Amino acid sequence: MRDVVEIGLGKTAQRGYHLDDIAIVPSRRTRDVDDVSTAWQLDAYQFGIPCVGHPSDATMSASSAVRLGQLGGLGVLNVEGLWTRYENPAKVLEELAGLDEDARATKRLQEVYAEPIRPDLIAERVRELRAGGGTVAVRVSPQHTLALAPVILDAGVDILVIQGTIVSAEHVSTTDEPLNLKEFIADLDLPVIVGGCTDYKTALHLMRTGAAGVIVGIGGDDWSTTESVLGIRVPMATAIADAAAARRDYLDETGGRYVHLIADGDIQTSGDIAKALGCGADAVMLGEALSLCEEAPAGGAWWHSAASHPSLPRGAFEVAGEPLGSMERLLFGPADEPDGQLNLFGGLRRAMAKCGYRDLKEFQKVGLVLDR
Amino acid sequence: MRDVVEIGLGKTAQRGYHLDDIAIVPSRRTRDVDDVSTAWQLDAYQFGIPCVGHPSDATMSASSAVRLGQLGGLGVLNVEGLWTRYENPAKVLEELAGLDEDARATKRLQEVYAEPIRPDLIAERVRELRAGGGTVAVRVSPQHTLALAPVILDAGVDILVIQGTIVSAEHVSTTDEPLNLKEFIADLDLPVIVGGCTDYKTALHLMRTGAAGVIVGIGGDDWSTTESVLGIRVPMATAIADAAAARRDYLDETGGRYVHLIADGDIQTSGDIAKALGCGADAVMLGEALSLCEEAPAGGAWWHSAASHPSLPRGAFEVAGEPLGSMERLLFGPADEPDGQLNLFGGLRRAMAKCGYRDLKEFQKVGLVLDR
Amino acid sequence: MRDVVEIGLGKTAQRGYHLDDIAIVPSRRTRDVDDVSTAWQLDAYQFGIPCVGHPSDATMSASSAVRLGQLGGLGVLNVEGLWTRYENPAKVLEELAGLDEDARATKRLQEVYAEPIRPDLIAERVRELRAGGGTVAVRVSPQHTLALAPVILDAGVDILVIQGTIVSAEHVSTTDEPLNLKEFIADLDLPVIVGGCTDYKTALHLMRTGAAGVIVGIGGDDWSTTESVLGIRVPMATAIADAAAARRDYLDETGGRYVHLIADGDIQTSGDIAKALGCGADAVMLGEALSLCEEAPAGGAWWHSAASHPSLPRGAFEVAGEPLGSMERLLFGPADEPDGQLNLFGGLRRAMAKCGYRDLKEFQKVGLVLDR
Amino acid sequence: MRDVVEIGLGKTAQRGYHLDDIAIVPSRRTRDVDDVSTAWQLDAYQFGIPCVGHPSDATMSASSAVRLGQLGGLGVLNVEGLWTRYENPAKVLEELAGLDEDARATKRLQEVYAEPIRPDLIAERVRELRAGGGTVAVRVSPQHTLALAPVILDAGVDILVIQGTIVSAEHVSTTDEPLNLKEFIADLDLPVIVGGCTDYKTALHLMRTGAAGVIVGIGGDDWSTTESVLGIRVPMATAIADAAAARRDYLDETGGRYVHLIADGDIQTSGDIAKALGCGADAVMLGEALSLCEEAPAGGAWWHSAASHPSLPRGAFEVAGEPLGSMERLLFGPADEPDGQLNLFGGLRRAMAKCGYRDLKEFQKVGLVLDR
Repeated sequence: MRDVVEIGLGKTAQRGYHLDDIAIVPSRRTRDVDDVSTAWQLDAYQFGIPCVGHPSDATMSASSAVRLGQLGGLGVLNVEGLWTRYENPAKVLEELAGLDEDARATKRLQEVYAEPIRPDLIAERVRELRAGGGTVAVRVSPQHTLALAPVILDAGVDILVIQGTIVSAEHVSTTDEPLNLKEFIADLDLPVIVGGCTDYKTALHLMRTGAAGVIVGIGGDDWSTTESVLGIRVPMATAIADAAAARRDYLDETGGRYVHLIADGDIQTSGDIAKALGCGADAVMLGEALSLCEEAPAGGAWWHSAASHPSLPRGAFEVAGEPLGSMERLLFGPADEPDGQLNLFGGLRRAMAKCGYRDLKEFQKVGLVLDR
Repeated sequence: MRDVVEIGLGKTAQRGYHLDDIAIVPSRRTRDVDDVSTAWQLDAYQFGIPCVGHPSDATMSASSAVRLGQLGGLGVLNVEGLWTRYENPAKVLEELAGLDEDARATKRLQEVYAEPIRPDLIAERVRELRAGGGTVAVRVSPQHTLALAPVILDAGVDILVIQGTIVSAEHVSTTDEPLNLKEFIADLDLPVIVGGCTDYKTALHLMRTGAAGVIVGIGGDDWSTTESVLGIRVPMATAIADAAAARRDYLDETGGRYVHLIADGDIQTSGDIAKALGCGADAVMLGEALSLCEEAPAGGAWWHSAASHPSLPRGAFEVAGEPLGSMERLLFGPADEPDGQLNLFGGLRRAMAKCGYRDLKEFQKVGLVLDR
Repeated sequence: MRDVVEIGLGKTAQRGYHLDDIAIVPSRRTRDVDDVSTAWQLDAYQFGIPCVGHPSDATMSASSAVRLGQLGGLGVLNVEGLWTRYENPAKVLEELAGLDEDARATKRLQEVYAEPIRPDLIAERVRELRAGGGTVAVRVSPQHTLALAPVILDAGVDILVIQGTIVSAEHVSTTDEPLNLKEFIADLDLPVIVGGCTDYKTALHLMRTGAAGVIVGIGGDDWSTTESVLGIRVPMATAIADAAAARRDYLDETGGRYVHLIADGDIQTSGDIAKALGCGADAVMLGEALSLCEEAPAGGAWWHSAASHPSLPRGAFEVAGEPLGSMERLLFGPADEPDGQLNLFGGLRRAMAKCGYRDLKEFQKVGLVLDR
Repeated sequence: MRDVVEIGLGKTAQRGYHLDDIAIVPSRRTRDVDDVSTAWQLDAYQFGIPCVGHPSDATMSASSAVRLGQLGGLGVLNVEGLWTRYENPAKVLEELAGLDEDARATKRLQEVYAEPIRPDLIAERVRELRAGGGTVAVRVSPQHTLALAPVILDAGVDILVIQGTIVSAEHVSTTDEPLNLKEFIADLDLPVIVGGCTDYKTALHLMRTGAAGVIVGIGGDDWSTTESVLGIRVPMATAIADAAAARRDYLDETGGRYVHLIADGDIQTSGDIAKALGCGADAVMLGEALSLCEEAPAGGAWWHSAASHPSLPRGAFEVAGEPLGSMERLLFGPADEPDGQLNLFGGLRRAMAKCGYRDLKEFQKVGLVLDR
């Protein structure tokens, strides 16, 4: 079954599958689309759609995060992004929105992100989120969690997202005191989402830290250059399915603790969302897909947070085009183009109906075909 | 044998094959092309070629359906298309034929299909078909079958095609009274073709409804965007072969009821027709391939019926080019381009001859090679 | 070992490999390039290189066939081509050489090949070949063999090539008296090469007809459209290796009759030649590759004989470019471009040396890697 | 496990994997990037990075080789290149740097390399290397080793690199007295690196000659045309892993002699470096990747030494573009583009950290996924 190949004598590799490699197979039953639910619940927080906004500056500002919450998803603001480096990043964002293909965009990103993070602005941004009235969630990197957590917690958030490109439950350092996730989470009284991770073992270890959610994947989309820079690439279908196995095993070992899986990578269309959930994810994190709506802060430009790294940037800058429509239209349609970028969750709902499923948990059992 | 891979721990996928993945292998015998028959019979109706016209407005009008019948195939008119929404759709078709790459074609399709269906026009179109003198067949969607069937049956058709993008024998709904295919078909005294379906089990269940023919596939061609929108994609070679297994099993369980398989998807050339039949189909449904003939209603433009869905359109609009020739020439040649788009059934006949087969049923046993 | 996959329930396909799918693996020994022999012998005829000119009008005229013989290969003239339809085809060839991408080339081919074959010109062309002083070989199609053989044999040829796109040892016809290859060959006192075929069984049956050589493949190169038109495609590496198995089995069953395999298809470069021979071929048939030399009759244009079929043409017309060099330079270099199109047999010789082999028969055992 | 497929009846091929086919899988531990070491030691010579400069004229001059040594790598000068054919090759290099896409570059390479090698210039170049103060290494071809070794050894080098496109431990010739590598190396008192080779057996035999390092691969990058010309292609992941198995077996058979593997081929980015080392290489040889730095002798143009072969050139000429930065910046960053061409060894270091490894030897055990 598990496809392990021998690359050369004595050196093996597991075969991994991308979301593009698979497709959903309808089963013998179909269902009325109005009888399908896309509801998702994380800890005490309920959501109409299994959608987490990617904490990248091109997608999530305080206001777009609030808007996503109003529409049923979970907005997440990056406390290490432009909004906490600039009192008013509007001018910077406008400039980035205006960059064209010829611009040295990565260089410019490095420059604007060289500005230091201001703790006072973190508190200010959380207040803005709180004023929006929905669930308040911010993202911090593992490296800065110990330093920034006090400010964040004082400001009062509902959900904390600790996200780096690759996060493990055991970070080794001889110079810094590394973050002990398990102790850190145990001391908190709010749900923590942590990741991304790419394999069963890391997912299981992250679950054991007490996290309420684990991010699977490292945002490895078309624009990603992680394979060129680090040699690392995540076949998302395999990563999600492996993490789902870890979720089952952890559920058994704890006698019932269910940790949610949030898939982050290779998800651009409603079809991709359906596939990710069909592989076992509980929700999806949408970055570039949401950067194309009218409410997006950078006018349709897109860059991942790793794209501004000062010495080893990863991830291409995607220049802005015409927005596809309002966030509501991106999420719920109507679509007037047939490419799967509009009506993202209407498409999911219909896919579930075509396969005869009622809710997201059931839909994780949908049949798959390998067709590439 | 059956290739089931483990996508991730505990999550499997069956490997599926497209028509493009396979090719036909000639056997040790060859046969004179004049000794080969492409005849096909469905219920009491006989056809010179195993060709069903796809009930899409770009391919089938009453007159092009009649013409296909005259040439030996089975024309099918969509009773939910433009011809039953407009007394005279000529102007609409002319406009669609003139759209170019830059047009917001999907949006325009949505607009022109917003016009309601008129039952009186259904009766009128059936009369036009009947006047043509051949076998009369129309298509209705499963959702509208109960409402429209009386009008259709009153008007008097020979064959009824109940076709949706994905049809199951068991549609579940808490709001509407769903169509019970088995009861509906039992009450009719005319042959019914039903589909599309994509797997063994659904095919078998559809056969058990009493259908005379089952459509395999959902028209998943190059222009299709179903994978982007719904995450669903049908590897046609596998879908056809699986449905052929269902046909054998159903033949056995009924002691002799043979249900015909009509392949709909990924069939553009004479080579594709040969492959689909070689995988086990009894006939092919041709949509875009026939939209390129001079008799096609939209001057060479092509769109699938799902492409005009008001909130979740699926399928790209293909703008019109120069027609390739008359319908007769598309079907029987002579070809003066070597790309397999002309002389579709002359190509099939020659493929059968090169492999030494006499008729279509024999040809279903042809050897295949996996060459991608 | 043998990779047979189940396309769908109960329908299998053998996995086939193209020459592009494989590469040669050097072994632990290397050899001086001057110690390597590329000599080939068919019946009593000896050749310096295992090279047969493809009997297509774009490659082989009487004079280019003679030239190929002088350079160590075997030229073959098509007695059903332009040279036997036109007393002087120079003007026709010039016109074809001048066609550009926009021309309806296939249509024009059909027109010029509509001219009937003149038996007197067959005799005349054989005399021209004979006058050249080398081995005289002509190609006739299976359909016309009975009619044209008397003329050909009277004119006096050394080797007869009976070649169609797909040839079997058992052609069935209810209208014509089909050619019985076995009886036909038994009555001749000259070696016959017959093909193309694509599988073990047909190859074995063709060997049993008494042929001295069997052509493997149907010229299925980049320009081929046989898959689009007929659904047939030949993975050449597999076809050659399977035919080589038939050669071994036939050698055993006859106690020593060795039938030569001539590979025809997917061979454009010296690397392709090395791969085809490494898979087990005894010689290669070069069509388009030789159409690029200065001596080629159509100035660098290329078309396969099937490309002029009156109702079902197969094979794209390749417009003429600048010739790459003289035939001698194409065969033996020196090359001044690194793309494998020049110094075809110098490249073969070096490949053999890099792998430590002395002669062609040994080289059939070279190690292969599957690398696509 | 080992994937051996039957190409055709009785003819097998091993399945080979390219570096592009695989990716690195982070394990459950991560590590501080400052705790990671990229140190490499060959015999008595220590290097800060596992980087060998490819002895091609477009990458290595005496001065760029010295510069590479200062930066922690091993520069290697080709004693059969332009520097030993021309007293001052500056003008030739300038011309080559100025060639554009339309130039007949291969032809021009053949002309400039027609100049004979001057032994006095070999001695002169070694003196220049020696004056640089670092480890002195030169490359000679197997064919010219016996003739040129005395000059080289007299001039005084630290490491000798005997490199041809494909080198075996047993070269057979009836005309020349071939180089006996084992005897030749035994007589030397300096470490020898020899290659390239492509399989386990050849690697093992080359280790048994007493070499300190074995080159795996034949520089089979994007620009390579070896497959077109010779039919030979090396799947690098498999070649490296197989050679690593030979290294283990040779270590065992000698009771502790560790021969270093230097990977040469398909390595353009920091991600490729990480993958090659993850497959088992001890160091990488960088050719085109380093030809893009400001210190490169040909202004950013690139050609492999085989590209100037007088009758059978292999390898495309890559025209010069704008240099990407200084050699230091290419090796250690900072990068301001995210494509993996800058900060080559910073990228490696971070990949090792993301996977939790401390040093290169440990990193050879990193997990791999097959993802194409």
